[in-house]
Amino acid sequence: MQWLDNITWTADGLVPVIAQEWHSNDVLMFAWMNREALALTAERGVAVYFSRSRNRLWHKGEESGHVQKVHEIRLDCDNDVVLLRVEQLGHEPGIACHTGRHSCFFQRLDGDQWVSVEPVLKDPATIYRA
Amino acid sequence: MQWLDNITWTADGLVPVIAQEWHSNDVLMFAWMNREALALTAERGVAVYFSRSRNRLWHKGEESGHVQKVHEIRLDCDNDVVLLRVEQLGHEPGIACHTGRHSCFFQRLDGDQWVSVEPVLKDPATIYRA
Repeated sequence: MQWLDNITWTADGLVPVIAQEWHSNDVLMFAWMNREALALTAERGVAVYFSRSRNRLWHKGEESGHVQKVHEIRLDCDNDVVLLRVEQLGHEPGIACHTGRHSCFFQRLDGDQWVSVEPVLKDPATIYRA
Repeated sequence: MQWLDNITWTADGLVPVIAQEWHSNDVLMFAWMNREALALTAERGVAVYFSRSRNRLWHKGEESGHVQKVHEIRLDCDNDVVLLRVEQLGHEPGIACHTGRHSCFFQRLDGDQWVSVEPVLKDPATIYRA
């Protein structure tokens, strides 16, 4: 597929991906995709990432139910970063972070300290059932 | 500085950075910082990146005048991605991209093609004077 060839992949065959909430424009998370993950994301309309730690495809929401419905796929000027505009499903308001928060970017630099400034919307212990 | 030690840097001593417009929440660009760049960014309140291609600090706006005033610095749950919430100065509306566009993410996947969907606000030839 030509549109996948247009992307400049890293030496490891990955591309960094920013997930942004469609209606609020909030930045939810940052992850990586390989070619297969991005092809599946486009085909199915739900976010599929590549987990570098587990070295396999990561179907976002496979355990939590917090699936990301894809509204738009964007590419930057250098063809090496993807912006995914998504609707965060499974909870209202959406929970993208494994800590049970809306966004992964919940730590803010205040003076010389990182302070958590976003609430936990759902206890992770109840999100991830073994 | 402890808050810099809290960050999980890559093997190359870098951290990925997402720049987001403060008032609109638009994602403007993606870049990298090393420890010195992030320290300077926090100290001066304007974005300083690390250019991997030029292998040196990149004071955003040094040539274009399109400086980014920093409102907030955020860190994600894994302590390895920074979100910079900025005001894009030097043009109204703000121009973050070297192509003269508001955002670097101006290519949208339509079917199986990348299509440019954001206007050029200023001719790059008039932005970057030799």
